[in-house]
Amino acid sequence: MSVVLVIIIIAALAALGFAALNYKSIKSMDEGTERMSEIAQAIRIGADAFMKYEYKILIVVAILVAVALGVFVSWYTGVCFIIGTLMSGAAGWVGMKAATHANVRVANTARLTKKMGETLKVAFKGGSVMGLSVGGFALLGIFIVYLVFGKALGQLNIENATTLYKNWMGVEFVPFTMSLSGYALGCSVIALFNRIGGGIYTKAADMGADLVGKTEAGIPEDDPRNPATIADNVGDNVGDVAGLGSDLLESFVGSISAASILGVHLFLSNSNIGTELLEKLLYYPMIFAACGLLSCVLGIASLLSRKNLSDNPHRELNGATWVSAGLTMVIGLVLTLVLLKDVPAESFKEIGFALGAVSPWVGAALGIISGILIGFIAEYYTSYDYAPTKKVAAASKEGSALTITQGMAVGMISCMAPLIVLGVALYVSYLVGGMFGVAMAGAGMLSFVSATVSVDTYGPISDNAGGIAEMSKLDPEVREITDTLDSVGNTTAAIGKGFAIGSAAFAALSLMISFLYSFNDPTTPLQLNLMDPLTLVGALVGAALPYMFSGLLIEAVAKAARKMVDEVRRQFKEKPGILAGTDTPDYKTCIEISSKGALAEMKLPSMLAIVVPLGTGFLLGPWFVGGLLIGATVSAIMLAIFTGNVGGSWDNGKKYIESGAIEGEGKGTDAHAAAVVGDTVGDPLKDTVGPSLDILIKIMSNVSLIAVALFNKYNVLAWIESLIK
Amino acid sequence: MSVVLVIIIIAALAALGFAALNYKSIKSMDEGTERMSEIAQAIRIGADAFMKYEYKILIVVAILVAVALGVFVSWYTGVCFIIGTLMSGAAGWVGMKAATHANVRVANTARLTKKMGETLKVAFKGGSVMGLSVGGFALLGIFIVYLVFGKALGQLNIENATTLYKNWMGVEFVPFTMSLSGYALGCSVIALFNRIGGGIYTKAADMGADLVGKTEAGIPEDDPRNPATIADNVGDNVGDVAGLGSDLLESFVGSISAASILGVHLFLSNSNIGTELLEKLLYYPMIFAACGLLSCVLGIASLLSRKNLSDNPHRELNGATWVSAGLTMVIGLVLTLVLLKDVPAESFKEIGFALGAVSPWVGAALGIISGILIGFIAEYYTSYDYAPTKKVAAASKEGSALTITQGMAVGMISCMAPLIVLGVALYVSYLVGGMFGVAMAGAGMLSFVSATVSVDTYGPISDNAGGIAEMSKLDPEVREITDTLDSVGNTTAAIGKGFAIGSAAFAALSLMISFLYSFNDPTTPLQLNLMDPLTLVGALVGAALPYMFSGLLIEAVAKAARKMVDEVRRQFKEKPGILAGTDTPDYKTCIEISSKGALAEMKLPSMLAIVVPLGTGFLLGPWFVGGLLIGATVSAIMLAIFTGNVGGSWDNGKKYIESGAIEGEGKGTDAHAAAVVGDTVGDPLKDTVGPSLDILIKIMSNVSLIAVALFNKYNVLAWIESLIK
Repeated sequence: MSVVLVIIIIAALAALGFAALNYKSIKSMDEGTERMSEIAQAIRIGADAFMKYEYKILIVVAILVAVALGVFVSWYTGVCFIIGTLMSGAAGWVGMKAATHANVRVANTARLTKKMGETLKVAFKGGSVMGLSVGGFALLGIFIVYLVFGKALGQLNIENATTLYKNWMGVEFVPFTMSLSGYALGCSVIALFNRIGGGIYTKAADMGADLVGKTEAGIPEDDPRNPATIADNVGDNVGDVAGLGSDLLESFVGSISAASILGVHLFLSNSNIGTELLEKLLYYPMIFAACGLLSCVLGIASLLSRKNLSDNPHRELNGATWVSAGLTMVIGLVLTLVLLKDVPAESFKEIGFALGAVSPWVGAALGIISGILIGFIAEYYTSYDYAPTKKVAAASKEGSALTITQGMAVGMISCMAPLIVLGVALYVSYLVGGMFGVAMAGAGMLSFVSATVSVDTYGPISDNAGGIAEMSKLDPEVREITDTLDSVGNTTAAIGKGFAIGSAAFAALSLMISFLYSFNDPTTPLQLNLMDPLTLVGALVGAALPYMFSGLLIEAVAKAARKMVDEVRRQFKEKPGILAGTDTPDYKTCIEISSKGALAEMKLPSMLAIVVPLGTGFLLGPWFVGGLLIGATVSAIMLAIFTGNVGGSWDNGKKYIESGAIEGEGKGTDAHAAAVVGDTVGDPLKDTVGPSLDILIKIMSNVSLIAVALFNKYNVLAWIESLIK
Repeated sequence: MSVVLVIIIIAALAALGFAALNYKSIKSMDEGTERMSEIAQAIRIGADAFMKYEYKILIVVAILVAVALGVFVSWYTGVCFIIGTLMSGAAGWVGMKAATHANVRVANTARLTKKMGETLKVAFKGGSVMGLSVGGFALLGIFIVYLVFGKALGQLNIENATTLYKNWMGVEFVPFTMSLSGYALGCSVIALFNRIGGGIYTKAADMGADLVGKTEAGIPEDDPRNPATIADNVGDNVGDVAGLGSDLLESFVGSISAASILGVHLFLSNSNIGTELLEKLLYYPMIFAACGLLSCVLGIASLLSRKNLSDNPHRELNGATWVSAGLTMVIGLVLTLVLLKDVPAESFKEIGFALGAVSPWVGAALGIISGILIGFIAEYYTSYDYAPTKKVAAASKEGSALTITQGMAVGMISCMAPLIVLGVALYVSYLVGGMFGVAMAGAGMLSFVSATVSVDTYGPISDNAGGIAEMSKLDPEVREITDTLDSVGNTTAAIGKGFAIGSAAFAALSLMISFLYSFNDPTTPLQLNLMDPLTLVGALVGAALPYMFSGLLIEAVAKAARKMVDEVRRQFKEKPGILAGTDTPDYKTCIEISSKGALAEMKLPSMLAIVVPLGTGFLLGPWFVGGLLIGATVSAIMLAIFTGNVGGSWDNGKKYIESGAIEGEGKGTDAHAAAVVGDTVGDPLKDTVGPSLDILIKIMSNVSLIAVALFNKYNVLAWIESLIK
């Protein structure tokens, strides 16, 4: 299996090398006018300051968690956790740095060339640094974990892989699964911080800037007279770039480790599987991910290497994604057949592979296809090319109340179709590949994550470029180019959200299955019985958890946004020269308000994700937590789809009115004002709440999986029961 | 057991007699000025017309369903279904008639006496007709079903009760459970129509009236110049009175029949229980309900018989409710001990009664207490006496977007506490009374339904009285009295919603348990295994269903409201004399728009509730439907709590601003306008969507329970599997 490790490190290094190349290429470009350079510098400084401050807190949290893991689980879980935080932290940092260098170069390219294709290339190159870093660092970490813990420490030797390790508390663990889980948890914790912190930051700044600027003072978006405008642009980088990157890195790692861990558990509960297949199941998800990463390197290069890009950014970006996804499926199929060719048919049967060697690939392919379908469904409900968002835009003519009402209707109705797609993929991948097939559907969906993240990151870079163009008072033509790129970015973001929630669902499910294997009776089929009242109550409380988490996040954004509103109002009042254009606003205070607000408000929701499964686990035991996890997962999937689509629909409904497609309406009309209300309400829903929900369910599953052996042995309810007996 | 039947018929007749007395007493009162009488007449005609039209459709639907039940299940299911529709239809009709007579008398009493206490008494008397009819007709129907089908046809003779009946398709049913289920389904179908139809009607009229009247024309609520104002007042009667009454009647019947049916299934799967206990389990929920109804008669009489009521309506109403609830618990305890005193201890043990004879009463008591607690929690989140709604009101100062955002945050956070209460009640009632204890928690929560419905109905009657006062240009003092009564009604409505959703959760759960018993392997503990992929997929799709249903309902209201807006605008434009007060508006066209809109738009969501469980059942079989039911139930509970509380909070946030509690704010300020947007958005959520969700989950469970024997035998998936084998 050493060949596998070689393939993985090649894939990781290829991705990271390509990222470094693109980073260097971006930095070597000219920043444009002095004013542009100044503004870019201000954004960069703001973003750096926030990330540094956030990472300082993270270091403390990470060390505490690592020590706790080391003491209560095992030292290698703690060390792997640290590796996870380092990899995810690095990806987020590098990607964000690249974005803050790329934004101004995008604006400058548009200024110099006036060409859509050229500008797109720079923006995508900037985004590709994040995309490739996500895949590269994630696989690099996995490589280290496999090499050091799996190989050097022998956890992957079959006899060790299935031997239980007993810690000083007498709690038993399967060693390698605890290394992998530790690594995944490290990535999760960074994602939690970057997503929630960044999410609150960006939306507080955005809402604050809009509420006073657009609505009260009547100045356009990104107007340099608005004191919150730099903070708004910083927010794009720390929220939509760094947050998104760590989020998808976490999903990527989570889906791979969930599938690998499941492999071990399947082996443990089916003694007839044979050690040969076990070893392959342990490696399969990872090698498939390496295939995906290599395919993405090729897919991204296929776009960047072309001399002349067309003026249709949507087609170009889709091209890169399809090449990556297509190659992943083809290379993945070849590799699957090679890897699994010698496995005896009985082993396949034992593990539920109905179609033999090709079975896990079918699961992965179903994951890819369903991810794409969910993305299309999101596009249908949120793009103004289709009826639902047109209806939302039309409702704006009747005022803001009906805009909100109609948007909510669209968002709620939009939950059904993706769930049917998910359901079919889940059921068929199970029929073909058993539980492992389901896990591979998740891993497959994320295998070409580097391409989707590159595309997703290009959006906020273009958005920032537009802001810099506006603030530097460049030719309106420049803004037009960046606006087109930005609006395409909105659609790609909606598709990206489909992948994020779909994969989170599969990953959470695979982790949950492993969780259940950890304490279920191995002689009976795997169970999570909702007629067990403890499990049912867990599911009920679990279902309420994402609502509470979302509510807290919305409140956090609203609170920080209100502070921003007050500050902007104060500046306008105290320095009337700002609006007249004779006085410069104080951008720094606004940046500080966003930073402090984000870091203060993220604590409670973040704690919830970790404390609730642990607390209830040690109180009520694993059956309650099993219910909690399934309840939270199902409920979070719904809310994530709802918030994502409702927010996208309001956003694009507003854009539809701005485009002049509704007769007599446009910027400045009452209908537009109503649409702006919808957009403002949707902002925290789609950009803070929705993406954070993906992380919530994965981190809960991860924490539970690591701690289940502990609270299965030690919990208050079991103790009371033992007293009664 | 004939004594039990006597007690039941006494309770039913006492309630119906008392209702008739109060109805007569209301009608004998004077209507006041000619103008008042005219307006009341117009509201009455509008309400009658809608109900008649709705009932005409219902007759067709009911006959079709009854025939289908008769053919595919058994003739007695069809007949009992018809009895259910008659009872529920009668209660809705009588209660609504009483309300449309009481409204004008309430206004007149306020006009003549200027006394809060006197006015409250008339309003409550009007409401009590609905409350007592709900309890009376429900029990009357149950009495008939027990007497005719149980006794006369011998379905309750022990040998028959547990003997399976085989219909011509070879499908087997337990006879009496199919009679009870048919009866419950009849009540459900009426509730579905009244709640959804009435809910769309009332909110379309309300939103339409507000959107043009308050927001555009700047005239106050209930201003006679607003063409939609009569439709708005009609809506209160068909939605908040008739809809609410049939809804709670359905819950009441559902919880009783669910518990009784569960008793049979428990007996069938625990052969050691003994026939004596079985018979008692069959009667127990019904006799407890009769206790509750008698207690309500006394509780309601305790208020109406007093000469001088205080000026604190909240205290007076609470008094009546506490007396009813307290008596129910005391009488219920005595009766439980008498009824179950001779049962051998082993039988109790077999069925999971940990505390012997008192066990089912503990379940019922937990239901009552948790219902009250959930009500208090709803009050905390929605009343402006507490922090959450104050925050929503404060957010209005920053505009409508932050009002919506802050309200959503409150609504989402508010989901956790009631779920914990429900969870604890569920778990403890299970520990004490087994599955039957859980079912009794639901039946207990609803046992004093007549008191809660009386209190709930008094709200819309007072609201209507205020409307009549405004339109008749009575002394502002009259309006002040009715406004106070109305605002207390808002709080009691929030508490009532807590009962509605809590009881729906328990009832759906008990029905689901019976559903599972219908096809689970009787030799193993009852299972609903979410690790069975078919069940899991069912749960995922099920969880999306309430979202889709809610989205369709919101869209229906928005669509009908938009038509109303257009009509009101048209009238204002074509007859400028209306706003000047020199021309009378055309109320009738607005009433027609609401009626037609409601009846057209209710079809799709209503179909969903019936077609989805049946369709998926015959396609994918009972395990999928099991998942569907649990997913839908959990998801609907969340949405019902969220929509109820978010709507209540926006409504009262607006009232808080109107009360002048925020310095510098009040009617006419920007903050008030923002709060009105929140209130308008919340209206369909809290009054159409939330209550309809309660019915959705019960009707789905009921339909599934009746059809499970059919689709367990005949479904496409099983057929395909048999082909493969």
